[in-house]
Amino acid sequence: MVGAGQLARMSAEAASALGIDFAVLAEREGDPGALVSSMALLGQSDLAGMDRLRRVAEVLTFDHEQIDLDALASLENQGVIARPSSATLSIAVDKVALRERLSAARISMPLFSAVRDDGADSRFRAIEAFGVRHGWPLVVKPARGGYDGKGVFFVNDVGAALELCEELRSFRGALLIEELVDLDAEIAVLVVRGIDGEIRTWPVIRTIQEDGICRETQVPASLPAPVLTSAESTAHEVASLLDVVGILAVEMFVTGDGRLLVNEVAARPHNSGHWSIEGSITSQFENHLRAILAMPLGETATLAPYVVTVNVLGGDEPGSLKGALGVPGAHIHLYAKSRRRGRKLGHVTALGDDLEEVRTRAWAAARALGTPARVEKTT
Amino acid sequence: MVGAGQLARMSAEAASALGIDFAVLAEREGDPGALVSSMALLGQSDLAGMDRLRRVAEVLTFDHEQIDLDALASLENQGVIARPSSATLSIAVDKVALRERLSAARISMPLFSAVRDDGADSRFRAIEAFGVRHGWPLVVKPARGGYDGKGVFFVNDVGAALELCEELRSFRGALLIEELVDLDAEIAVLVVRGIDGEIRTWPVIRTIQEDGICRETQVPASLPAPVLTSAESTAHEVASLLDVVGILAVEMFVTGDGRLLVNEVAARPHNSGHWSIEGSITSQFENHLRAILAMPLGETATLAPYVVTVNVLGGDEPGSLKGALGVPGAHIHLYAKSRRRGRKLGHVTALGDDLEEVRTRAWAAARALGTPARVEKTT
Repeated sequence: MVGAGQLARMSAEAASALGIDFAVLAEREGDPGALVSSMALLGQSDLAGMDRLRRVAEVLTFDHEQIDLDALASLENQGVIARPSSATLSIAVDKVALRERLSAARISMPLFSAVRDDGADSRFRAIEAFGVRHGWPLVVKPARGGYDGKGVFFVNDVGAALELCEELRSFRGALLIEELVDLDAEIAVLVVRGIDGEIRTWPVIRTIQEDGICRETQVPASLPAPVLTSAESTAHEVASLLDVVGILAVEMFVTGDGRLLVNEVAARPHNSGHWSIEGSITSQFENHLRAILAMPLGETATLAPYVVTVNVLGGDEPGSLKGALGVPGAHIHLYAKSRRRGRKLGHVTALGDDLEEVRTRAWAAARALGTPARVEKTT
Repeated sequence: MVGAGQLARMSAEAASALGIDFAVLAEREGDPGALVSSMALLGQSDLAGMDRLRRVAEVLTFDHEQIDLDALASLENQGVIARPSSATLSIAVDKVALRERLSAARISMPLFSAVRDDGADSRFRAIEAFGVRHGWPLVVKPARGGYDGKGVFFVNDVGAALELCEELRSFRGALLIEELVDLDAEIAVLVVRGIDGEIRTWPVIRTIQEDGICRETQVPASLPAPVLTSAESTAHEVASLLDVVGILAVEMFVTGDGRLLVNEVAARPHNSGHWSIEGSITSQFENHLRAILAMPLGETATLAPYVVTVNVLGGDEPGSLKGALGVPGAHIHLYAKSRRRGRKLGHVTALGDDLEEVRTRAWAAARALGTPARVEKTT
């Protein structure tokens, strides 16, 4: 696995259970996934790093999006197997490429426009034109990664558009411009796709976001059956269009006027799927491994009527593991990361028959671990 | 953890989830637990090895019984915390010490006698006297460890006793002599005991043995309620008598004439408790960590009406992970050990509403992994 964050750590736990040797390419020795993997190489997610990793690994897979995709493609040309492939990732990690590919397949998304020319004037003209046509406020996102830690800019009017283009002068790369959606709910559909194209889907996940940070997931999402069915079939279509092998998380908006719109995708295990470790017969981490190793996919049924996961975020005070373990039936996961306000340090999952009771337990443990009641910004 | 076998590996997986740094003392670099722990020291389970381990660990715990207990006691005198303690282990790992301690507390066990003098004549006289008094065949066991891989000798008559004493001439140490019990069933009671003496118990486990090897466990054991209640209260009593901290597995015989007799104990996570990883709210590995780290104990309720675990044993042919993963709802655990006939290489757990259906699935996956239908001898 290229990268050694918490996704690598939880993948390593799944690999250990299956007796699989699991190597990570870590930036630092103390990275969460480096500590518990059977092999940890130190290096960047670039040609040199990935070339070292492929010498010890049958197949490459990925913990994050910051991959040198040209380097990966050149390795694939030499016969290296990457799952997902650089072709899949080049769409999944690029918001503009994703919008254009899905648009061609008539998949519903927010209204959007793209500006590739990174001159401030071109950007301003594109944002202004979109605002004039579709109204203000609107949303601007760097197509890849983010700028200064931010991946979403809300733009209220022409003046704010000018200011933003000034702020982004040093940012190279395309921008996505899109409508600000009137949100009713945010959901994620988690699927796993095998090398033969078989797809298995977990129940639709409701994600509770606050200032761009996922605070909580609820399974199953309490939405009308036709919305759930439509969300699942959309996710299947996206997984096939992108020729994904492994996990794909498709994040969608449910709008106030009843539309279901694809927002982003992640072609890797995803924060919205952590509940599957205890809440499903097969976790997303095990199914990702099964898929990329060309093994049969595991069952995705849930083990309780409700499964709630709350992210453990860094707060002002250190949390108490002892306090959290005192909450009955709270499954604690900590990623061995240092605390910083708003940083994802772990998660807690609870299962049960009553949604509010399950939420109460999960939150009690997450709060004991120092999770603040409110967060201000993405970290 | 002193030792780095499969128990260390599964403990490391539980520690990883909780974000706990987990160090092992491994005999070899490639030991199952060494590959996935945050730190692996190389060394023996002796004073030098344990002294190195304690320098990086807040608390010592144990993967196996072959510990230098005098060395451990001297470390404890220097303030090292061992859970379980050397006092607990000195009884738990010694069949004669265990019989004598439990006998003093009037806990039911097979009729027994002990011979500490390791001269062949003394041993023969003791075995003969026991046979004359209680009848033949009888059973002889080395009090600690085993001899040449064997821990149980069945002795049919005086002639066989003579032969055995000849065979054991080079074996130093006490022998336990006991009645050959008319077995109806073998069970294990798994408990976890905290530093404050709190005990939590998993449902009673039926263990299916063949030639001294545990082939399968079934939870819950289908035995009359009074037997189950009595088994649980006996296990609690043993855990308290031995002042255990962490997991204690108490293996018991249910006899044809309705007696419930304590056989052996293990003061560590135990093969009979592997089902708890998927079958219980809290696994034995997590609860062992909770107990030795002075954290609140986790719930021990089961997640399905029946939970069956089948051990994956080495057979003549390598198994197929792909084949095993194709069995629906079979949770595969492999320990990354090389194959040798009869060796425990992993286990498979299945859950469900119907015992026979669950057994069929677990066995199908274990057979796909190369487990032979029959085994001949302990390894």
